[in-house]
Amino acid sequence: MKIAILGGTGDIGEGLALRFAQKHSVIVGSRDAEKAKEAAKKYDELLKSRGMKDDVEGMSNVDATRDADIVILAVKFQFAVETLQSVADDLDGKIIVSPIVPMSKTKLCAYTPPEKGSAARHMCSVMPPEIRMVVAFQTLPAPRLANLDDPLGFDVIVCADDEEAKKVVMDLVPDLGNVRALDGGGLEEAKLVESLTPLLINLAIRNKMKPLSMKFV
Amino acid sequence: MKIAILGGTGDIGEGLALRFAQKHSVIVGSRDAEKAKEAAKKYDELLKSRGMKDDVEGMSNVDATRDADIVILAVKFQFAVETLQSVADDLDGKIIVSPIVPMSKTKLCAYTPPEKGSAARHMCSVMPPEIRMVVAFQTLPAPRLANLDDPLGFDVIVCADDEEAKKVVMDLVPDLGNVRALDGGGLEEAKLVESLTPLLINLAIRNKMKPLSMKFV
Repeated sequence: MKIAILGGTGDIGEGLALRFAQKHSVIVGSRDAEKAKEAAKKYDELLKSRGMKDDVEGMSNVDATRDADIVILAVKFQFAVETLQSVADDLDGKIIVSPIVPMSKTKLCAYTPPEKGSAARHMCSVMPPEIRMVVAFQTLPAPRLANLDDPLGFDVIVCADDEEAKKVVMDLVPDLGNVRALDGGGLEEAKLVESLTPLLINLAIRNKMKPLSMKFV
Repeated sequence: MKIAILGGTGDIGEGLALRFAQKHSVIVGSRDAEKAKEAAKKYDELLKSRGMKDDVEGMSNVDATRDADIVILAVKFQFAVETLQSVADDLDGKIIVSPIVPMSKTKLCAYTPPEKGSAARHMCSVMPPEIRMVVAFQTLPAPRLANLDDPLGFDVIVCADDEEAKKVVMDLVPDLGNVRALDGGGLEEAKLVESLTPLLINLAIRNKMKPLSMKFV
């Protein structure tokens, strides 16, 4: 599958790119195509140096979306709508995956959902009704995902109103390697799933632990 | 330590009683002292039959509270305030632990927090300000806790504004056997912790799994 990771030059985008590249074609997107190409080159070099499959390209967000089967929106909440709208002409039925969590951070993190209840609902409210929005990856800590020596062993909750799109993403999740997908229901559950990220961050800070993910046992 | 479990005749009270009895003196409380005595007898017989420590007594909620060092409020949300008020005269500085989650259930579960934001905050709002409220055990599935063959291996998030009370409960949690306590912050976090219970129940239903708990990894 061809996976575009918009905003794939940093944070959770990096780990998603490195790990999905082992089973799929990954396109790193950025507003700045040069920045995307640089990141893709860096990822490819890292993968090559470890003798791993290095199939990562870099493009502008628009080009990345046009070429992709599925689009992961790995940008901060404040850039989400702007990014989505910038690629809207090339979405035509493609699945959008949102790992986005609106948060404020001082010493600890707080979930700051928009008026619509969740980032996912907010994005849906400004896009055409046929948008295929899927919520996933909120419980993956970016630095551990990007560390290819980390064995992971995490669960990811996937929510969508579009059952077919949800199924596609749930089938994709295990390709990260040792990550399990769980059906979290429809987008009305996005609020709770998004709020797990500040919970994980705060638990790690309060209990002096490494970045945390979760596993349902 | 002497632990009273009000409403300890069923649901999560059963597992807490059976497991805490291995390291502490447990008093099962009920509005009906006879019911409490029957449950305590049943627990003691089960523990004896397995060659385990069987130190469980049954009393009315009021007597149980009077005798205890720490009071676990294992009742449904709709009985929480009534139960607390019925034992108020004997609380005098004792720690109250709330595993309570306000939920509605049809096919799936929904978190239905009261106006104050959480069950814990709601209870605090109707009790004297010196109440030592600690939130814990929300992520423990009752049937698995009561099954002494279940190896558990779960995490419990503990929240309280009273740091000393939180510390006491965090030290108590591992005495359930293979359950870890994590500091979840103050009572303002109770809302999120309480909302994890319907998340766990719904994940188990949607993914056709056994009752689930969670582990932070």
